[in-house]
Amino acid sequence: MMNLSFTRSFGLLTAVQSLFRGCGQVMFQGNGWTGLFFLVGIFWGACTAGTPAVAWGAVVGLLASTCTGYLLRQPCEEGEAGLWGFNGILVGCAFPTFLGNTPAMWAALVLCACATTWVRTGFNNVMRPWKVNSLTFPFVFLTWMFLFAARMLAAIPSSSLAVPVLTMHTAGTLDVGLTSLVTYWLKGIAQVFLIDSWFTGLLFLVALFISSRWAALWAAVGSAVALLTAILFQAPDTYIAAGLYGFSPVLTAIALGCTFYRPGVRTAVWTLLGVLTTVFVQAGMDALMLPFGIATLTAPFCITTWLFLLPLYKLEHKEADHSHWHKTVTK
Amino acid sequence: MMNLSFTRSFGLLTAVQSLFRGCGQVMFQGNGWTGLFFLVGIFWGACTAGTPAVAWGAVVGLLASTCTGYLLRQPCEEGEAGLWGFNGILVGCAFPTFLGNTPAMWAALVLCACATTWVRTGFNNVMRPWKVNSLTFPFVFLTWMFLFAARMLAAIPSSSLAVPVLTMHTAGTLDVGLTSLVTYWLKGIAQVFLIDSWFTGLLFLVALFISSRWAALWAAVGSAVALLTAILFQAPDTYIAAGLYGFSPVLTAIALGCTFYRPGVRTAVWTLLGVLTTVFVQAGMDALMLPFGIATLTAPFCITTWLFLLPLYKLEHKEADHSHWHKTVTK
Amino acid sequence: MMNLSFTRSFGLLTAVQSLFRGCGQVMFQGNGWTGLFFLVGIFWGACTAGTPAVAWGAVVGLLASTCTGYLLRQPCEEGEAGLWGFNGILVGCAFPTFLGNTPAMWAALVLCACATTWVRTGFNNVMRPWKVNSLTFPFVFLTWMFLFAARMLAAIPSSSLAVPVLTMHTAGTLDVGLTSLVTYWLKGIAQVFLIDSWFTGLLFLVALFISSRWAALWAAVGSAVALLTAILFQAPDTYIAAGLYGFSPVLTAIALGCTFYRPGVRTAVWTLLGVLTTVFVQAGMDALMLPFGIATLTAPFCITTWLFLLPLYKLEHKEADHSHWHKTVTK
Repeated sequence: MMNLSFTRSFGLLTAVQSLFRGCGQVMFQGNGWTGLFFLVGIFWGACTAGTPAVAWGAVVGLLASTCTGYLLRQPCEEGEAGLWGFNGILVGCAFPTFLGNTPAMWAALVLCACATTWVRTGFNNVMRPWKVNSLTFPFVFLTWMFLFAARMLAAIPSSSLAVPVLTMHTAGTLDVGLTSLVTYWLKGIAQVFLIDSWFTGLLFLVALFISSRWAALWAAVGSAVALLTAILFQAPDTYIAAGLYGFSPVLTAIALGCTFYRPGVRTAVWTLLGVLTTVFVQAGMDALMLPFGIATLTAPFCITTWLFLLPLYKLEHKEADHSHWHKTVTK
Repeated sequence: MMNLSFTRSFGLLTAVQSLFRGCGQVMFQGNGWTGLFFLVGIFWGACTAGTPAVAWGAVVGLLASTCTGYLLRQPCEEGEAGLWGFNGILVGCAFPTFLGNTPAMWAALVLCACATTWVRTGFNNVMRPWKVNSLTFPFVFLTWMFLFAARMLAAIPSSSLAVPVLTMHTAGTLDVGLTSLVTYWLKGIAQVFLIDSWFTGLLFLVALFISSRWAALWAAVGSAVALLTAILFQAPDTYIAAGLYGFSPVLTAIALGCTFYRPGVRTAVWTLLGVLTTVFVQAGMDALMLPFGIATLTAPFCITTWLFLLPLYKLEHKEADHSHWHKTVTK
Repeated sequence: MMNLSFTRSFGLLTAVQSLFRGCGQVMFQGNGWTGLFFLVGIFWGACTAGTPAVAWGAVVGLLASTCTGYLLRQPCEEGEAGLWGFNGILVGCAFPTFLGNTPAMWAALVLCACATTWVRTGFNNVMRPWKVNSLTFPFVFLTWMFLFAARMLAAIPSSSLAVPVLTMHTAGTLDVGLTSLVTYWLKGIAQVFLIDSWFTGLLFLVALFISSRWAALWAAVGSAVALLTAILFQAPDTYIAAGLYGFSPVLTAIALGCTFYRPGVRTAVWTLLGVLTTVFVQAGMDALMLPFGIATLTAPFCITTWLFLLPLYKLEHKEADHSHWHKTVTK
């Protein structure tokens, strides 16, 4: 694990680039500008919603997990590709969203964000024999643990978590006017970073376009297909309106459509099946988590993407770019 | 994964045989006649109970998952052995049993049955290093997801699912007259396909006998030992009377007693331990699922059989027949 | 798996030593005297609490699981090192703690304790590719199954299990006088064997000291750091006072601090991080189990230790002593 090449100069510019790329890697984009736009979107969404702590949490989580990668002397090229930061930034968005703003919460946030770095290495070690990657599951697993823990630890107020219930009764009808639909569709993209703002979703689409047109296309298609499916199968209207049926399918779409497979007809069919399946896994996990009042986070994306990668079908298999993700996957 | 031998003629007869064998493989029998008898039992049980949708669901699920195997060009010999269909037929039995009969339910059923085929390939890839098979777990995992999802998706009525509760209070005494005991015993075998009919259980025993006397014997012994254990440990009387403590032990008995090990004295002791353990795993999972109101499906069978296969003990290890299961297990 | 060396004389003395070492291995000490002291501590704690069945359960569980190792002809050196007994003795402590004292309970205890031996072999087979050990997880997994099962099986009274609830309201303040703190600290060590007695904790520390000064030191430090963390983050006072936030961190501390890594500065930092993380995993799992009313057992220790071993960092890696654990881990 010790890497001698670590000793080569790792200047300030590289460090900053590493951080922005870490932000971009949440949607598989090792592109600093994409990451910067993502961060702008997060700040916009968090501040207009009156919860700037979510944006500051993102910054703290990104810094904590990236620094941990340096301190543990993990392979340098991983850090430069931004692979130390994407779990940490999600931890940083999630904690202030679900937990009260206390010093103990921030201490827990830092510990949890740091832990994502070595837990990611561990999970990737576990999954390597099957040529799959841990994706955002280090974030999901550790954040679940800490959100559950907050129910027991009075120093971390869990008042923003959902009330645990055995069944949910949803009444109310969804507004399906065109403006509303576009809003839900864009919020589905913004919710990848737990942001409930259509404008942030638009910024995220632009950010993706900078890095990869395919990624932007699949994010847009993924959110739209998921929205349509959720409406047809009559998912709870509050969930749909907040974009909560969109964020996991968006990630599945980018992962299958242009990250782990090369774009093409067969890849497109496979990706659409993946998006459809993610909607059902999302609904299933929403129901599973009801008695605990804990969010699914991006677990539906991780689980569905694994289900579609594990058969190891050779569609249009990606060889060239996104080499860092690919390397993690195939080495 | 692409198999050139797929191009060889795969006629109508082979296709029909492949479907019936898929039905038979639910109890590890790659025998078309056994599968045909199973299907007759399913139709008898479903129609006499006034729920013909369960039998039609079985047909649809069997067709959907088997066709998926062809479309994905999975190895042809797997299809001929019926290994594409056994998860799909179980999905097809489960959906109309637990969910309301709506178009959305049938759409979900088809998607779920199709998915079992590639999820089985993926799960088998995961488990290959330990020389175990995913058994019916692709059916269990995906059906759980969709049953949970039905609680959130109003288009799929979840009214036939159990009401979620934190604890269960069972009063009432079990009728232990000889006729009743025989009924419970046979229902334990019928419930493998979610059928609550003693006559179907009898048909299943005959069907097993056609293919393998050992399989019929172990199914009978497994259901009987499980019934006795459940009575001694005072499991809920309604569960026992419906055969719900029998179906997983029946599968464990066939799997350990004459599929993955060659019949013999040491195998018999090991299998009886497996049957006993399955009863406790069944009871444990019943309690675990109470707050969700979701059935355990055949998960207790899968988990217990893995617990007894993973130590890789060499009892009387099976080499010869059941070669397809064996091949999947050892290759 | 068959071991010819098994035929060599396995005398009474070896058998007794094997049993005591099995007791010691709960805290990674293959030392008969340590095991004897542990057993004395268990009897003291159980009898003074008026629950001698817990101590007798420990003896029965230890005997059952160790005998199973002989009968299954597992490698002899594992038995001599005490690796057949440590899961069984924990099963034996847990059953009478949580379940009513009936013949059916004792039958279930024996089956469960026996099963830990082959389940341990199976789980170790699963985890070998990643160079980790199943630790006490065979005990945790099987005991969970049986405790859940007890909720359904009236012959095994589940009256001592916690009442399932959706949320917990804890009022009351923790007494943080020095005497109280020392009591909580020592109880944290005693609870490894589910004993709620400060004097037993003291006996356990002495027992550890006999075998390894580092193990005693890390047990003491682990319990103290966990206690402090639990107080700072305001865990429920009843849990803290009973030592229930201490036992898993104690095991994590011994595992990381001087069993799987060689003691040193970097190991110490890593171990302290592990202890901290265990406290949050403990709190999280406590909340997760609320709707089921089932204890976490030593799962938080297993999960956290895996999270810290799986990255395969080379700190001060242990090569020399504790060779049996090491061998299990690296072979």
